Amino acid sequence: MGAIDIAETDLSTGGEVRLAARAGRLHDHTSGHAPDYVQANLMIVPRALAYDFLLYCQRNPKPCPLLAVSDVGESRLAKLGADLDVRTDVPRYRVWRHGELADEPSDISSLWRDDLVAFAIGCSFSFEQAIMAAGVPLRHVARGDNVAMFRTSIATAPAGAFHGPLVVTMRPFAPADAVRAVQITSRFPNVHGAPVHLGDASAIGIDDISRPDFGDPIDVHTGELPVFWACGVTPQAAVMAARPEFCITHAPGCMLVTDLKNEQLASL
Amino acid sequence: MGAIDIAETDLSTGGEVRLAARAGRLHDHTSGHAPDYVQANLMIVPRALAYDFLLYCQRNPKPCPLLAVSDVGESRLAKLGADLDVRTDVPRYRVWRHGELADEPSDISSLWRDDLVAFAIGCSFSFEQAIMAAGVPLRHVARGDNVAMFRTSIATAPAGAFHGPLVVTMRPFAPADAVRAVQITSRFPNVHGAPVHLGDASAIGIDDISRPDFGDPIDVHTGELPVFWACGVTPQAAVMAARPEFCITHAPGCMLVTDLKNEQLASL
Repeated sequence: MGAIDIAETDLSTGGEVRLAARAGRLHDHTSGHAPDYVQANLMIVPRALAYDFLLYCQRNPKPCPLLAVSDVGESRLAKLGADLDVRTDVPRYRVWRHGELADEPSDISSLWRDDLVAFAIGCSFSFEQAIMAAGVPLRHVARGDNVAMFRTSIATAPAGAFHGPLVVTMRPFAPADAVRAVQITSRFPNVHGAPVHLGDASAIGIDDISRPDFGDPIDVHTGELPVFWACGVTPQAAVMAARPEFCITHAPGCMLVTDLKNEQLASL
Repeated sequence: MGAIDIAETDLSTGGEVRLAARAGRLHDHTSGHAPDYVQANLMIVPRALAYDFLLYCQRNPKPCPLLAVSDVGESRLAKLGADLDVRTDVPRYRVWRHGELADEPSDISSLWRDDLVAFAIGCSFSFEQAIMAAGVPLRHVARGDNVAMFRTSIATAPAGAFHGPLVVTMRPFAPADAVRAVQITSRFPNVHGAPVHLGDASAIGIDDISRPDFGDPIDVHTGELPVFWACGVTPQAAVMAARPEFCITHAPGCMLVTDLKNEQLASL
């Protein structure tokens, strides 16, 4: 029963990833595991904040594409996996108190409360898989880097306590590949969908494209266009700005992996 | 300043329809007016029920495609029209008390409360326009009939107080036109999107296709398939079943007409 490091081992389904996380055998990021399965951002807030957060997601569907919302006090999201339990199935969590990071546990069972509501939000891992499947290269993936993320000057639509700037991911493409990337991601509205911008970064308030606010830098080569998608960091930033008494998220890159296949999210 | 009957007069934009309703010059259905503009179902509930209703819509996006949600106590939905006011801009409302129809006023200003939340929900008028624009005939429209609607044996996903069967609209098509209708409506996820079923009506609990539960009957000719879409009557039925102390909807066919164009809702 000793813990074994399976970071290098293939976990091929959502269920296998969740079991490994639940058993304490996976504490690391989920990128590369179960590549055909939908991975989700997780946000857990008290019921007192849940209406505002649900409304924030409704008003900002590109950065906050909701996949499922639990009943109040319910840690299961059967729509995403019959056995799925948000208290145990994420490799690493972040616990926030008054907007400050308080802990990074690998299990939140002891913190669970009857008034908590769990929100699973789509993640761009799903559309990256579709882009690569179409033969369009993604340089940050080939390098093993994290995607570059930027705060923009685009304000999200506020809802109650929540507001803040749109955060975007950026991927550089040759023009013909940028067209293909628009087409492909348009089919996935539940995982951020079509880009929000392409070309001139300064038009959305990004002063230095070589210095992302989060993730790894990536060069935009001569003849390439930067293409920008709404990012799942946006809702986390909006919640942190509201400094709620208590909330729990996944740790960056340590996603909730579901039983949904990426292709099931395709709209056409 | 006498009231004039403009039922037969063309109102070509959403703004013109709203002004006519606001001025008391339009009390009738909005079908045929402002055909390029998005028309919406309206549901107004107290804040105490708003979380459950918002969650019901999130869990049932095909029958309940949310276009906009007001702030609490706010009667404007600027996203749908700068001047839009849900208290005055619908030709005729229905006021419900404990699930029973209490009144059908043409203005609800005197009933407005600081705790009310307005939900605008997409309507199939938008995709019908797109189907006809593609040269595919819609027999009920050509006849001037209301679309045929049926309760099904498909249960919606419950949320708090709200639950109930999926209600569908049915339109008969020749097979090639059914394929086109699937393609066209897939582009409009915010107005019910792709069909939920086609072919055998009994498979979704419809015993007699010639006798709709709402709207006008329509024959399915030899060689045609019935095609079924999720319907905006579904959320009204779920709310009525919950018998809330107080809520307000539009009267059937008397929609909230917005400044959005149908094509703006197209996903591709």
